[in-house]
Parts: sequence; C-alpha cells; structure tokens
Amino acid sequence: MKLKSICEVEGVEAAGIKEGKYGLALIKASGNAAAVFTRNRVMAEPVRLMLNRQDSGRLDGVIVNSGNANVFTGEQGYRDAERMAEIAAEALGTSPELIGVASTGVIGRYLHIDIIEDQCNRIKDSLASDEKSGDDAAAAIMTTDLYPKQAISKRKGFTVAGITKGSGMIAPNMGTMLGFIYTDAEVSPDDLKKALLLATERSFNRVVVDGDTSTNDCVFLTATGLKGKQNFDEFYSALEEVCISLAKQIAEDGEGATKFVEVSVTGAKSEDDAAVIAKTIVGSSLVKTAIYGEDPNWGRIIAAAGRAGPEFDPLKTSISISSGEKTVILEEKGVIKADDKVNPGALAAAKELMKGKNLKILFDLGDADFKATAWGCDLTEKYVEINGKYTT
Amino acid sequence: MKLKSICEVEGVEAAGIKEGKYGLALIKASGNAAAVFTRNRVMAEPVRLMLNRQDSGRLDGVIVNSGNANVFTGEQGYRDAERMAEIAAEALGTSPELIGVASTGVIGRYLHIDIIEDQCNRIKDSLASDEKSGDDAAAAIMTTDLYPKQAISKRKGFTVAGITKGSGMIAPNMGTMLGFIYTDAEVSPDDLKKALLLATERSFNRVVVDGDTSTNDCVFLTATGLKGKQNFDEFYSALEEVCISLAKQIAEDGEGATKFVEVSVTGAKSEDDAAVIAKTIVGSSLVKTAIYGEDPNWGRIIAAAGRAGPEFDPLKTSISISSGEKTVILEEKGVIKADDKVNPGALAAAKELMKGKNLKILFDLGDADFKATAWGCDLTEKYVEINGKYTT
Repeated sequence: MKLKSICEVEGVEAAGIKEGKYGLALIKASGNAAAVFTRNRVMAEPVRLMLNRQDSGRLDGVIVNSGNANVFTGEQGYRDAERMAEIAAEALGTSPELIGVASTGVIGRYLHIDIIEDQCNRIKDSLASDEKSGDDAAAAIMTTDLYPKQAISKRKGFTVAGITKGSGMIAPNMGTMLGFIYTDAEVSPDDLKKALLLATERSFNRVVVDGDTSTNDCVFLTATGLKGKQNFDEFYSALEEVCISLAKQIAEDGEGATKFVEVSVTGAKSEDDAAVIAKTIVGSSLVKTAIYGEDPNWGRIIAAAGRAGPEFDPLKTSISISSGEKTVILEEKGVIKADDKVNPGALAAAKELMKGKNLKILFDLGDADFKATAWGCDLTEKYVEINGKYTT
Repeated sequence: MKLKSICEVEGVEAAGIKEGKYGLALIKASGNAAAVFTRNRVMAEPVRLMLNRQDSGRLDGVIVNSGNANVFTGEQGYRDAERMAEIAAEALGTSPELIGVASTGVIGRYLHIDIIEDQCNRIKDSLASDEKSGDDAAAAIMTTDLYPKQAISKRKGFTVAGITKGSGMIAPNMGTMLGFIYTDAEVSPDDLKKALLLATERSFNRVVVDGDTSTNDCVFLTATGLKGKQNFDEFYSALEEVCISLAKQIAEDGEGATKFVEVSVTGAKSEDDAAVIAKTIVGSSLVKTAIYGEDPNWGRIIAAAGRAGPEFDPLKTSISISSGEKTVILEEKGVIKADDKVNPGALAAAKELMKGKNLKILFDLGDADFKATAWGCDLTEKYVEINGKYTT
C-alpha cells in the first residue's frame, strides 16, 4: 500500500496521542504557511487567537487537541489557547507566534489545559518523520471519526500530503473539520493563500454531512520548501487532489453513514450556481434518507434543487443516478423516465442500483457549461443515535 | 371539547374521503379569497395553474387530493390540475375559475385523475356544515400526518377556522403544507391578502421540520362575509391565532417527533434577524438530535445562531431552556452557567428538565427589542425510518 503519511513530505515530523476522549497532535514543520478559518460568527478561542495574530506567513508547527473545542470560554479560553501555543513552542524550540493552534470537541466547557500540557510533555520526544508518527497525529485529532483520514499526492520533484478530521457538523462552509496540509515544494505565502482558498472552496466547502457549521474549522497549509520552487499550476493540482481526497473521506465517514454520495451538477450558468445546487441536493435530509432507504425518489432531488436559489428551467433539466458501471435515467429534459406508466422496469432498475455503497447523482441544468461536484452521505438512525448522546 | 371544525364558520360546507394513500377533500365556501404559494422554483402543476389564473379575488370552493403531488408531470399534469378544477366546479355548481386546487404526496408520478373523479362523485352529496364533515376534510388531506390538524378562533361577531396538513418537508418557507382557512367576517380581497401574508410569515414560515421546502405549499383564505364587516385588527388577530395554532400542530406532528420545541429569540435588531436565527436553531440537525437525546448541548444552539447570518456579539447573549415551570440558564451574557466547574448541578438540572415533552429555548441577543418565535421538533430514528421508505 502506498504510504500516505504527512511524514512523506520532507521536513515534517509528527507525534500524537489519544487517551479516551482527549487527544493531542503535535506537528513540526517550518516554512511559509497559510490558513483558512470558519465563517461561523461564533468562533472558537483558538480561531480568535489565530485571527488576532499578526500573520507572519510562516509557521514552525501546530498543536491540536481533541475532546474540547474551547468555544464560548471567554478570556479564560483565550488564555488557554495562548497557553497551548506556548506549550508547543517550548516543545518545538520556537516562539508561540509561529505555532498554529486548533481544537475540536464539545463546545462550552473550559479546557483542561493540564491534560494538554501533560500529553504534550509525554509525546514531544517521540516527534519523528516515520509513517507511524504521521498515523498517530491523524488518529489523535479524531472525535466521532471512525478512522483517521490521510491523503497524499506525489509529483515529480515534490509531495503534498495532509490529514483531516471531521464527520459531523459538516456543512457547506466547512463543518468541524480540521485540516493540516504539508508540501516540500517552495511556495510563497501569497501563493499558498491563493491556492488554499480555491482548493478549500472546491473540496472541504463542498462536503455536507448535516448542514451545521462548526465554530472551530480551520485548515493550515505549510510549505517546508525543501524540494525547491515548482510550477504553480502543478502545485495547485496536487493540493486540490489532496484536499478533494480528504473531503471525500470526511463524507465517507459521515456520522452513521452507510453510503457515500457524489452529486455532480453540470450545464450551469456559473460554477457558483452549480456548487450551491450540488450542496443543497447532497445536504437535503429528504434526499439523504431516500438514499439510505435505497429509494429512487428523485422528486426530492428536484425539490432540493428548486429551493437552492439559482434560477433554472425544470423542463431543461435531466437527472440520472449511477453506481459502478450502471446508470438509470430518472428524468430527461423535463420528461419523467422512471415511472411505471411510461417506462416499466426503470424504477425497479433504479432501486436495484441504489443498493450500491457508492452512488452518483448527475443533475444537468441544460443551460451552459459550468459544473461543480459536492460530496455527502446518507442520513441514518445511527446519525441520530450518535448525536443524541454526544456530550455525556 | 370546543368544536374546532371549519364548519363552525358560517357558509362553509365540507366533505372528505381517505382510501389508503389516496384522499380527497372538497370544501364549499363562496366569498372573497386570497392565497399564498411555495417559493420553490420547482412548482407543482396545481400551483402553476393557480398562479397563471387571473386572480378574481374570489373562490367558491377548493378541491385537494393527497397521495400524489402532481409535480414534474408537465403538460399532462397541468391538464390534470385543470381537470380537478372542472370536477369540483361541476360538483359545486360553479365555474372552474372559482375553484382552488391543491395536491400533496409523491413527486414525479402522473396523477390518477380517474380516482379523483370517482372519489369526488362519491363525496359531493355528503357536503355538509356539521362537525364530522369538517373532520373528514381535515383527515382526507393527510399524508404522513399522524392526526388531522384544525384550529379555531371565535371572536365577538365572527369566527376564523382552518385545517392544515404537513409533517415532513417542512422548512422556513413553508414545507409541504396545505392550509385552508375560512372566516365569516366580511373582508376585502386586498385586506385578506395583506393579512394572510403577514400571518403566514409569523406562523407557517416559522415551522422547521427538516429544512426541505415543498413544491406544493399553499394556503387559501376565504371570507364568506356572512357575519358582516369587522374591525381589521381584530380579524388579523384571530387569523394569526389560527395560523400559529396550525403551525404548532405541524411541528408537534413532525415526522418521527417525540418532543415539541419552541425557540424564542429576543433582543434582536429586527424581527427578520430574530426570525432567521430562531429558524436556524430550531432547524439544526445537531440541536434536534441533542433535544431527542435530552442533552443540554447548548454549544450547538450558539453554533447554529452563529451561522444564521445576522451579526451579534456572543458575549452579549444569554441562553436558557424551559419545560413547564422549570428554567435553567445555560449561559448569561457570554458567561457559561451550566458547567460543573462553575455551577455544579446546573448541567444535571438541565438534563432532568429536558425529559419534558414540550421544551422552550430562549435566546436573548442583548442588542435591541425585536423578537420572533419558531417551532420545530426533535430528530429521531423514526424520522429516518419514515423517510427512508416513503415512495414504496
């Protein structure tokens, strides 16, 4: 199996520990850096700390805790976030201003900073650039995630790799997802920022699990630069590949999910139009339960598209659903195809196809040439069970 | 028990039948009328028919079928909707232009117009103004509703009463909800329209079950005028009372719901701001599952408010939760109150309180004096089960 660890990127060392609900990851990587943060008006204290800080365009490392989101904890929480930066800076031999801080977990509880300090002290000596260390860091940041999420793109001359966490509270504007992405390409802070914004828009911002947006979202991108300057487009392509792979892993691991869904909207007047429709379809509770029930109820797809916002003519649209090699056309240019009156057997074929674990919904607007893809999962009893009993 | 039938309004006769999934209601009431319709870009054929018609400001009756929504059925569906108006007009001895037509049920299937005609022929002679006839009509329009929904407001000199259906696909902009409201007050078409728009905004548009918006929503309001002219404010007050009662019944009967939730947002800069925040909180999957799990996870409340749109300062907000006479303050002006570190026992008290079936969440923004209330329900395994197996 191909190694996917962030430690495949030259200049990256990682360590992680997970003890019950409390986890800590420490990643050492010096270089130019960029970051994007949640758009929720209620922000976690570590996010406030990052946004308040004079952006030097550089990082020496990040510290991430799981189990407590450090949100709504006021001045105490802000000081705790600052303290996390100090703890990591001491461990990595740098200054707190060059440390990225992130938290994930329950909201509205004061941080147990003593646990974080203790965990950091115990793992700092195990910082290493081997596969296991990358795996440990990926596992340490999980909350309700069922498995760690890693992705890599190896190109001629450089590598991009990242880890992420997230499976609930995932929304169009990044749910509680944390992402830490590394490259050994040499990239300027401005180019990193530009690349990260676009890649995030086309990956993490197109994953919908439950339509809620977290207070803690962030993605950090650090370029150690050890492999020297590279073609920007080639770098962007590798970055987007890694971000999309991580985003799809978040959708696949959606809380309680039994099926993975990809919604592609084509024929739109703009990429934004296509994206908002794709995200609305993939986020609809009714579409999600229909997918869980293996029910080709495409009326819910068109109803979700209709409330998404962008104008379109229903009679120019076409909808089909695929799994593996099989495709069933549900409606074509406004004419119902999957109805027993007009096409006996089509509904049954669609039902059969929906037994697959990986489904694709293709929605063509029939207007112009723009397109976008969004990812999600089904809505199951298990999602309800997980989220009905989270805090306790 | 107080009679709540629409037949308590003078001049209203009703009949209804429900046979398996197919139901039909026929209501006779002549007078000035107004209606509001779905904002979904994909509209049912009966909605298109209503919107295309020259609005005469009058109705002689309505015909409503349940079991098939007549959406995405193109020209055939449009002709079927026209045919429904003809069938009812013949039964009521008037012209099709004076008939309101509405449908609810599955999307993307051609209507069985023969069933509708047959049912109408069998019930037209039972049109009557007794209680049972009103009940029959209320029951005939149900789909996944567990019980018929009726409300009445008797004022000095006149009455307003209505029926509604709806329990899934309920969203800020009216889910699949149909409403038929009657008054024997004399009200002009313009005043009816004005009153219906505002009352709908403050009632049906503030119910969220699953955030999906139907293609079929409509509310018809007819004034038979038999009790003569009334004070407009008094009429509006009765209408709003009926609409809010019906809206709350929709939330209480939310698919799979075990708890009813009322979210009141106060201290906002405008009623719109308060309403959008209240609706976002009550519609959040994470808030809904927390309520189901009786988990006072108020971080999800503040996170939902934060993504709603309007600006506010988290440190000026206060959140409390009530059931019956009991109230627990979760946070006050940005300071956490329900945390075992600062207030031992408060979390346990909140958990105990959440065992109630009727919960109120009070969210004060601490900014100004505007407020709004929204209604919803919890998200349960049963919702998933109902919606995973709907079409079949």
